[in-house]
Amino acid sequence: MKNELRIFCPATIANISCGFDVLGVALDSVGDEMVIRKVSKKGIHIIKLEGQDLPMETHKNVAGVAGMAFLGESDYGGGFEIEIYKKIKAGSGIGSSAASSTGAVWGMNQLLGRPFTTLKLVEFAMEGEKLASGVAHADNVAPALFGGFTLVRSYEPLDIIPIHNPKELFATVIHPQIEIKTSDSRKILKTNITLKEGIKQWGNVGGLVAGLFTEDYDLIGRSLVDHIVEPIRSILIPGFNEVKASAIASGALGCGISGSGPSIFAFSKGEDTAEKVAQSMKNVYKKIGIDHDIHISKINVEGIRKIN
Amino acid sequence: MKNELRIFCPATIANISCGFDVLGVALDSVGDEMVIRKVSKKGIHIIKLEGQDLPMETHKNVAGVAGMAFLGESDYGGGFEIEIYKKIKAGSGIGSSAASSTGAVWGMNQLLGRPFTTLKLVEFAMEGEKLASGVAHADNVAPALFGGFTLVRSYEPLDIIPIHNPKELFATVIHPQIEIKTSDSRKILKTNITLKEGIKQWGNVGGLVAGLFTEDYDLIGRSLVDHIVEPIRSILIPGFNEVKASAIASGALGCGISGSGPSIFAFSKGEDTAEKVAQSMKNVYKKIGIDHDIHISKINVEGIRKIN
Repeated sequence: MKNELRIFCPATIANISCGFDVLGVALDSVGDEMVIRKVSKKGIHIIKLEGQDLPMETHKNVAGVAGMAFLGESDYGGGFEIEIYKKIKAGSGIGSSAASSTGAVWGMNQLLGRPFTTLKLVEFAMEGEKLASGVAHADNVAPALFGGFTLVRSYEPLDIIPIHNPKELFATVIHPQIEIKTSDSRKILKTNITLKEGIKQWGNVGGLVAGLFTEDYDLIGRSLVDHIVEPIRSILIPGFNEVKASAIASGALGCGISGSGPSIFAFSKGEDTAEKVAQSMKNVYKKIGIDHDIHISKINVEGIRKIN
Repeated sequence: MKNELRIFCPATIANISCGFDVLGVALDSVGDEMVIRKVSKKGIHIIKLEGQDLPMETHKNVAGVAGMAFLGESDYGGGFEIEIYKKIKAGSGIGSSAASSTGAVWGMNQLLGRPFTTLKLVEFAMEGEKLASGVAHADNVAPALFGGFTLVRSYEPLDIIPIHNPKELFATVIHPQIEIKTSDSRKILKTNITLKEGIKQWGNVGGLVAGLFTEDYDLIGRSLVDHIVEPIRSILIPGFNEVKASAIASGALGCGISGSGPSIFAFSKGEDTAEKVAQSMKNVYKKIGIDHDIHISKINVEGIRKIN
């Protein structure tokens, strides 16, 4: 068995419109690289971290914390060295911490001959999410580990449902270079909603899941609606309404906040449309003078993968 | 073209657990019969109504009101005679009014060569629902007209999504002979819910729709949960908790309130289990001395149909 793996750890979109806290998806063209290496020295040792200014101490790093959760339930007597090459910016809203924590546990599991199920890896990786945002949420780590669209049906017990991935679906994600803390973004949410709003939301979740299974792009678009969280959180993202309007006008099926922002995602049918949508989103931020990164990606149906 | 049709109008289960106000399904072994006849005399004429004590005046009868909504948008210059043979008890919670209003408009549409879409027929039939309960809801009329499981994704605009129907899924429905008015049953609902409860509910709606599409019976069962409405409404139904517990103990995938009650439905994989579940549900009402009807049915995938 090999002692070392180099892997690609995808960025992910969580809180997909109506699917707040439950629906996420893995991307293909943006993600980190990691090297995971079996060593005799016990514990998790982060020996390299490039691309972002993040702590390398095991207990302060999401990969370290997730890795320790893994080791805590493993029979393995040794340890792991981890190298992290960040390409996803921390705080961008496309699952930077999830990429690192899932990459660590997925790689470790491979190197040990897969003693744990993918669901169990989600649990370990959630410990990293807890360190990053204070909440052990699963809606980024689940798509990173399972690939494609995933539903977190329940937390107690944890139940992750892989959803079908329409072949022509592409994501465009724009990251305006402003900072929003996940914890702030949580604080402004209302703790109560009306039953009426709830019914609309779960009608759309049902429609979105049905649209994904039947590859009905029009239904996917009609269902990408969020009456509850987006109207509040979008206030924190300058230009959100203009970006969304221009994405839709350029042919996007739907558009919303990625994670807790500030990134904004749009889904399109076909890569050409996704590129037009990207151009229109960029134009908005150029006009109001906000620096931004943009990504166009097909859906990543396999999740984390080995690379050479 | 024929001038007369005899049709079967299925009973339906609405408010399927987590799918409150959005998910319904059509049954196969219980429903009304109707005869719809083209006549030269303008208007809707209910000339026979057997089986239940309900008003026959056009404007007081759900089939009459739905039929008039149909005629109001039709080019047809004549009228229709309607005979209704009720087998579904009014107020039982399995779509008695929906069966009559959908039967009327479906039959009329057939006899005129189908000038209207099925979605348009849903709109006409909703006028009947409005007469019956004060609310123009679509979650019984949609499955009666489309067949199978249907999702009311949105009311404005009206958007009905047919869901896949697992082949081995059977419904057991027990109707305890007590009276609950739909309007009373609506009044006791809370108008606000917590965001946390909402998230659980839409996670389950996503899981239920995914389970139906993938014919994953276990997932269907895990998703048949309602944290919001069932805990409140079940108080109005004597023996509800015992009936539910005995259904699950007998192998049902899940169990909940049909419509606004008092009927209770359970879903099972396979007819044998559905029968065992029926027996266990009956035993509860026998023990506490409440008269009851019971129905075991496969899913009716075609909805209303012609009979000879």
